[in-house]
Amino acid sequence: MSMKNDLLIKTLQGEKVDRPPVWLMRQAGRILPEYRAIREKLPDFKALVSNPQLAAEVTIQPVDILKVDAAIIFSDILVVPEAMGLHYEMVEKVGPRFPKTIQSGRDIDQLLSGDDAADNLDYVYNALEVTQRNLDSRVPLIGFSGAPYTLLAYMVEGKGSKTFSKAKRLLYAEPAMAHALLEKLTKTIISYLKRKVRAGASVIQLFDSWAGLLDRRLYQEFSLKYIRLICDALKDVPVIVFAKGAWFSMEDIATIPDVAIGLDWQTDPATARQVFGADRTLQGNLDPCCLLGPENQIRQAVKDMLSSFGRNHIANLGHGVYPETEVSAVKAFIDEVKSYQYP
Amino acid sequence: MSMKNDLLIKTLQGEKVDRPPVWLMRQAGRILPEYRAIREKLPDFKALVSNPQLAAEVTIQPVDILKVDAAIIFSDILVVPEAMGLHYEMVEKVGPRFPKTIQSGRDIDQLLSGDDAADNLDYVYNALEVTQRNLDSRVPLIGFSGAPYTLLAYMVEGKGSKTFSKAKRLLYAEPAMAHALLEKLTKTIISYLKRKVRAGASVIQLFDSWAGLLDRRLYQEFSLKYIRLICDALKDVPVIVFAKGAWFSMEDIATIPDVAIGLDWQTDPATARQVFGADRTLQGNLDPCCLLGPENQIRQAVKDMLSSFGRNHIANLGHGVYPETEVSAVKAFIDEVKSYQYP
Repeated sequence: MSMKNDLLIKTLQGEKVDRPPVWLMRQAGRILPEYRAIREKLPDFKALVSNPQLAAEVTIQPVDILKVDAAIIFSDILVVPEAMGLHYEMVEKVGPRFPKTIQSGRDIDQLLSGDDAADNLDYVYNALEVTQRNLDSRVPLIGFSGAPYTLLAYMVEGKGSKTFSKAKRLLYAEPAMAHALLEKLTKTIISYLKRKVRAGASVIQLFDSWAGLLDRRLYQEFSLKYIRLICDALKDVPVIVFAKGAWFSMEDIATIPDVAIGLDWQTDPATARQVFGADRTLQGNLDPCCLLGPENQIRQAVKDMLSSFGRNHIANLGHGVYPETEVSAVKAFIDEVKSYQYP
Repeated sequence: MSMKNDLLIKTLQGEKVDRPPVWLMRQAGRILPEYRAIREKLPDFKALVSNPQLAAEVTIQPVDILKVDAAIIFSDILVVPEAMGLHYEMVEKVGPRFPKTIQSGRDIDQLLSGDDAADNLDYVYNALEVTQRNLDSRVPLIGFSGAPYTLLAYMVEGKGSKTFSKAKRLLYAEPAMAHALLEKLTKTIISYLKRKVRAGASVIQLFDSWAGLLDRRLYQEFSLKYIRLICDALKDVPVIVFAKGAWFSMEDIATIPDVAIGLDWQTDPATARQVFGADRTLQGNLDPCCLLGPENQIRQAVKDMLSSFGRNHIANLGHGVYPETEVSAVKAFIDEVKSYQYP
């Protein structure tokens, strides 16, 4: 099966291309009126996540409407804890809530892991299969998972938090318990992502959304170690590691072989190139807030970004696109990337 | 009037001392049962902030109970917007809320600034005077303000936010409006801090709490420029600049002459010394979550931190102490600093 637009795959394989591929984190599920029309018919966010037909539809919308160079499966990082046995709710305009959180070794013992947990995510694999069929190889399909530490953070804290101090307390006060949970998460994520690949994902992105609350020592011990294991287990598919806010561990992240690196908007391209080298595929990293400004400014910022990164780059934002962003601004961002040519 | 414990002042003046001074951000108002006893008698947080007698009492509590080397006036960074005419509420367990936010140039025109705004903060100056009297020169008294950008962020966003995207939109879409507001804030802060010094503050700390959401270019233009103006206007008093999360601007912050630099816990001491030099007074930076772990680990972390920073250092956390911290852990932190001797 050959891909009609394989710019993303080629870039991830280090091949020479004419321009960088472009997609946006959260391109599905936040900004398109066509998405909202589908979402409004359903009782809640999770009803959409667990409906393969509709999840596939909103996954493909940005390919049809925005003409991005990749689709990313519409889903949620918290389906993994749920598959392990920890139920969560998505509270409208607030975020996720776990009615029961992980507080003890016993709580961890009771969690499913590996294949047993991944077995509970058939609706995700189905969504990937439907998407793959309907995409008809127009662009690559990205599958994703939260990184183990980020999932631990939610499972222990029970919700989003400015400090995630309950979750971080575990690392300081009960490191063995933290590692037990991280091991179960890692096994599950590996099993889950392998099935995602079998179901049609040709690229994997790991989101370590709360990396920035750690420091270099904690990041090494409680996050990077497990990300490495996942990357090692996924040698047959290109992987993008996005550790938001982990500037203090950039040099450590650079030691993961062969993966692409997602960058937040605070990391300037020149610094990133210095740390990661010219040959590493880097992804990012326009400030999503730039898309809230005027179009000429967006276009100039894209040009600056592309010339600063140079080759081996996937154009994207430095964080998920914000819900209040105008579709016209997103289109300007994409159009500017597509009209760029490497010198 | 000579200070009985002038370790903080001497350290800020670059004098040689036997051990670093120690205090904790948020040492007043979060962790002591003696604080909670006073707070519970009042209808809300703002009732305590605006009561000079009680504000002084909770300011002095950590000096009496925890034996820290400095007091910091119990107050709130949002008293400044309020004095400018933008009313806020402190919602229990949620945080600040501005019923009306800054949306237009007209909104900015209507704000008071400079002396006219600072005139409305007599209750803060009174609190400083009462504190100074009751402290009886035992330790220096720190006054503080939010940095202009951080106050703008709240005034435009209207509340805390993970992204502060409404506030940041202003920087991209309406930079002239942002500068008009920042100028008014800067004038007010200068006037406010000068009066705080006259009322008894012998050290000033600027909190740029949301610095980490910007990037280097935005930080230069919309924050650092105004912090510089404030530091220039306060030449007669030692100033500590704490720009949380602004790792990307460390080198720019290092160009502010003569001020001490507060560091978050993600910035490791060796990196900070490289950027700021051995002679710069640095403050921080233990992860507040470390205080949620066992005491022996806290003591070891303090020793590591003190030897990594070396001289010209003020021992502190890398963020405000978290409310769930045990007093015994805070005491272990302080005790370990106090029993340290520079080699």
